[in-house]
Amino acid sequence: MFKPAALALATASLVFAGNAIAETAQTERHNVEATTIAEGLSFPWGIAFLPNGDALITEKSGTLRRVGMNGVIGEAITNVPDVVYKSQGGLLDVAIDPNFADNNWVYLSYSEADPAGGEGNSTAVARGKLIGNNLQEVEVIFRGAPKYKSGAHFGSRLVFSPEGYLFVTLGDRYSAMDDAQTLDNHHGKVVRIWPDGSVPEDNPFAGKEDALPEIWSYGHRNVQGAAIHPDSGALWTVEHGPKGGDEINIPKAGANYGWPIATYGVDYDNSIISEKTHVEGTVQPHYYWVPSIATSNMIFYTGDEFPAWQGDVLVAALKTMKVARLDLEGDRVMHEEDLFVDLVNQRIRDIEQGPDGAIYLVTDDRNGKLIRISNADE
Amino acid sequence: MFKPAALALATASLVFAGNAIAETAQTERHNVEATTIAEGLSFPWGIAFLPNGDALITEKSGTLRRVGMNGVIGEAITNVPDVVYKSQGGLLDVAIDPNFADNNWVYLSYSEADPAGGEGNSTAVARGKLIGNNLQEVEVIFRGAPKYKSGAHFGSRLVFSPEGYLFVTLGDRYSAMDDAQTLDNHHGKVVRIWPDGSVPEDNPFAGKEDALPEIWSYGHRNVQGAAIHPDSGALWTVEHGPKGGDEINIPKAGANYGWPIATYGVDYDNSIISEKTHVEGTVQPHYYWVPSIATSNMIFYTGDEFPAWQGDVLVAALKTMKVARLDLEGDRVMHEEDLFVDLVNQRIRDIEQGPDGAIYLVTDDRNGKLIRISNADE
Ligand SMILES: [Ca+2]
Ligand SMILES: [Ca+2]
Repeated sequence: MFKPAALALATASLVFAGNAIAETAQTERHNVEATTIAEGLSFPWGIAFLPNGDALITEKSGTLRRVGMNGVIGEAITNVPDVVYKSQGGLLDVAIDPNFADNNWVYLSYSEADPAGGEGNSTAVARGKLIGNNLQEVEVIFRGAPKYKSGAHFGSRLVFSPEGYLFVTLGDRYSAMDDAQTLDNHHGKVVRIWPDGSVPEDNPFAGKEDALPEIWSYGHRNVQGAAIHPDSGALWTVEHGPKGGDEINIPKAGANYGWPIATYGVDYDNSIISEKTHVEGTVQPHYYWVPSIATSNMIFYTGDEFPAWQGDVLVAALKTMKVARLDLEGDRVMHEEDLFVDLVNQRIRDIEQGPDGAIYLVTDDRNGKLIRISNADE
Repeated sequence: MFKPAALALATASLVFAGNAIAETAQTERHNVEATTIAEGLSFPWGIAFLPNGDALITEKSGTLRRVGMNGVIGEAITNVPDVVYKSQGGLLDVAIDPNFADNNWVYLSYSEADPAGGEGNSTAVARGKLIGNNLQEVEVIFRGAPKYKSGAHFGSRLVFSPEGYLFVTLGDRYSAMDDAQTLDNHHGKVVRIWPDGSVPEDNPFAGKEDALPEIWSYGHRNVQGAAIHPDSGALWTVEHGPKGGDEINIPKAGANYGWPIATYGVDYDNSIISEKTHVEGTVQPHYYWVPSIATSNMIFYTGDEFPAWQGDVLVAALKTMKVARLDLEGDRVMHEEDLFVDLVNQRIRDIEQGPDGAIYLVTDDRNGKLIRISNADE
């Protein structure tokens, strides 16, 4: 039996979610069923599936847990780096190494305090070998520069390209937004590194003066979603606009995506703000939303569970508590559909495709849920 | 003073609209003002601007009128071809010759009865020289084949390409939908002819057996919107889907746009219908809507009145009484905005850009209006 009262109390260590309840909904091309696999997660942020089908899930406060598809939430994995848990900061994304089965590397992005003791912080990426319920040989492979005193716009997502590069998406730290246009810092950048943190020699600004060599693309605001296109192998990202102007981009090496000098952001009353939409030398978004849907992560759906969605982009959203499905033909958006409206009813922080082809969501809530979306067609 | 009572009675000949009333609304990038230039038009269908700034407007019942921007509606222009005014049939689109200033040719599309006296009808195109308030030297330059007994899906729009070809967009006649996939008829086709009705030698099916030489593209459902892209010179069309699946296409010579074997149409309860979305040998839509917005005509906006909309597609809609703005980068749709919702409040049958850069709409109503949308930014 489902026991919501008991579950609301359960916040850590070995929670069994009980018999899951499911709700169904209709979409344009599939009927779907949403099943709460687990709840009681504290502001979960990132999901990564392990080869055995379990999920690793980050909680923003700094906890990493293994969650079974039977609803069992594991105890906190030990030896996770300390995080600055404040405002938008905390433990953020998690990814596993493409060769995890051989090397056990797990990658975490998080808000890191200044190791020198200053008041600033920045997004950092660490990796450790997951052995049992412990991270071993933990090392920081990326440290955003400069450390900056702000609780906002850390990004981030971690995705591996088919060539084995690790992309880390970052934010402009809000009050440092102008930094997104200069190359001597990591604010408002997408960076590309090797999994050990070394810098690829062919990075666009490697060896250039006054530029940080990790930078892949710049002029971003707060990139909280990223995925690799399954056919082209290209990186796609999605970022929050200011008040409107959420953007999908296909970041090219060395390109400038405009923030804050070019944006489709609009003001709260929907009137335009002073920023221009087109500025010479900046790249237009691939697709954008006005008003903002408050994008979190994105995936390309490739599973068999939802045949009509294969090849489509699914963008999860916080404020609007939905998933936007973009029907693609090549890279071109042909159509947008709102999925899971009034089905999830919580802010959606991450979306991933499971090994079974179902779609998994975590919700940005004190009583955060892991939800599986499966096919309910007759 | 504005006298609605008097206007409601006025249905023909020399109506002065009185002092126009205007309403304003906000959009993402411009404030707009809607002014009713004229009303009392009987189900107006097509608008074409004359070099002097007057508009020619068709009324579905078979009347063509000159309407001044001061609101003066002229008497019926004489010698317009007889039309079959029934259900969706009647006098449809109007276009003026690219060399109108020299040759006075006006082109009309309409539902034509079978000249042999049969019960069928089809879309036809006639042209005549507009001299004063009279059409002279009227000749039928295109006659859809076969004549078919149906009151539905006649298309049509008339647009000239930069090379001087005349594109005529057609419908599948509803109950003859399967004909859209065969080339021995004009149902569900876009055709390309010279302005005198002769067939261009390089038409894709010219000289082919069992194919009508006028055909440019096929597999369309009911194409009621068309425009030429201002940069590429390519034809773009918009067609009604069945119950969902309204499509923008960029019809290429000889290509098959899928209807009725491939469609994004969905049923009234939003569940999928049996038709496939992808069929080998058919071209995916450039962009589509589910549910249907009930598209009528489209333009590419190029004027100075709304600088932020330059290069955008504007698609007018009947059922949803709005205009969809598609922000383009090249041919790619980056964003869609609903314009003029709760501003027009009538089904919009045609949209054109005026010589002044303002946007002109006619509404599909017994008391149809000609509305000017102008810039109300401060
Ligand atoms: Ca941008
Ligand atoms: Ca089609």
